[in-house]
Amino acid sequence: MVITSRDNPNVKRIAKLTRRSEAKSEGVIYLEGTRLCEEALASGQKAMEVIVTEDKVSWAKEFTPDIEPLVLSKDVFAKISQTVNPQGVAIIIKEPGISADIPSRGDNKDIYVVLENTQDPGNLGTIIRMADAFGLTAVIVSPTTCDPYNDKVIRATMGSVWHIPVVRKAMDECFEYFGKNNIDTLAMHLKGSELGSGDLRLPCAYFIGNEGDGLTDETSQRCTKLVKIPMKGQAESLNAAVAASVIGYELSKLI
Amino acid sequence: MVITSRDNPNVKRIAKLTRRSEAKSEGVIYLEGTRLCEEALASGQKAMEVIVTEDKVSWAKEFTPDIEPLVLSKDVFAKISQTVNPQGVAIIIKEPGISADIPSRGDNKDIYVVLENTQDPGNLGTIIRMADAFGLTAVIVSPTTCDPYNDKVIRATMGSVWHIPVVRKAMDECFEYFGKNNIDTLAMHLKGSELGSGDLRLPCAYFIGNEGDGLTDETSQRCTKLVKIPMKGQAESLNAAVAASVIGYELSKLI
Repeated sequence: MVITSRDNPNVKRIAKLTRRSEAKSEGVIYLEGTRLCEEALASGQKAMEVIVTEDKVSWAKEFTPDIEPLVLSKDVFAKISQTVNPQGVAIIIKEPGISADIPSRGDNKDIYVVLENTQDPGNLGTIIRMADAFGLTAVIVSPTTCDPYNDKVIRATMGSVWHIPVVRKAMDECFEYFGKNNIDTLAMHLKGSELGSGDLRLPCAYFIGNEGDGLTDETSQRCTKLVKIPMKGQAESLNAAVAASVIGYELSKLI
Repeated sequence: MVITSRDNPNVKRIAKLTRRSEAKSEGVIYLEGTRLCEEALASGQKAMEVIVTEDKVSWAKEFTPDIEPLVLSKDVFAKISQTVNPQGVAIIIKEPGISADIPSRGDNKDIYVVLENTQDPGNLGTIIRMADAFGLTAVIVSPTTCDPYNDKVIRATMGSVWHIPVVRKAMDECFEYFGKNNIDTLAMHLKGSELGSGDLRLPCAYFIGNEGDGLTDETSQRCTKLVKIPMKGQAESLNAAVAASVIGYELSKLI
């Protein structure tokens, strides 16, 4: 049966979940569009609900065969859609365990990138994608860092948000874990010493600060060492995702 | 004298130049806001015109003492402004020579990053910033790459767009120049061989393709070698700015 009314209780419920703040408070993620939905499903995320337009019922049969989709008229789908040109495909999935423990590979070659107060969704997404590409163990985000399941972040990860653990931890808990497990801690800091090959050893956690302000003094002081990426030009600093990627790449050579 | 009418001919002329397409066709750039204007002026760009609100005449006296500013009422400034909360400061500068020749350091240590059809302004800006930071000789953009003086690009460069030459060249002209000057050409390509230290020598030009499609076959085939950045995780590719930065960093070690 095709739902043609915006006032249908199921439609109302889904419409609410298209707002990230509502979905977050229920521990779910609303994903819309074929690329985003297929990436998540291909990576093993399970759809809790599937919402399609009439002409996309075949999509639902192919990608989510075990779930009865909610079929909406194009008009109703367009009303709840978060995109300008709706593709008529959306799913709701459970949020992966963002508050889980810090994971480990178990071979003393862990690499963690720790983000303290990263604000730009594009940067966060790019860092998650890079961390997946270079085989890092996890991306750890401070409670003040932007929501990893923000739509812009998910898009920028190109699917990597489903491949690599993203863990939210207070800095205190991070340092406790890293100390207990003899994990080197590197603060990326413009006042640090220029990174040399001797600075890098595994296991390692490296800390990247806020785009404008860098790391807090408190976090910098708790790290083993303050380092900066050698720069030979006039620019005073690098984009946060670029800095994270250069170090991630250098550390990945040691795996 | 403070201009209080939107119909003033000077205001009309400036309003036209706030549209990038109009400014581009006149070979100028409209910059608004203290950070953007001050960065450009500090890097030696000369203001051709200065537009301020009454309360920002002192800014004009400090930063552009040789030019009589156009003083607008806050109301009129807000009408032409491209920002939500106008700071009451704008300048017009001449576009740096984007169609100039490919520059050289003259010591056989040139590094060029060549962008073929980069579309995301954030990526282009981040690459220009990285190229400045790592001491590259120039950023070369294909005619199909997005406008380097687009407001979003300029913001993402954090001033670097004024520090490093950005040159627009057809791929044919690039290969002609690189061939004539014995400059190594590396195509960043997902089908390339994994980058090893032996692959990098100076002078070098490395080519980065479009975010979705990568480099064209034609360009890839004309390069000395196809390489890819080693990736140990599940991600199939890296963000274009991240890929450009990792190679830029590796090459900068050879300067």
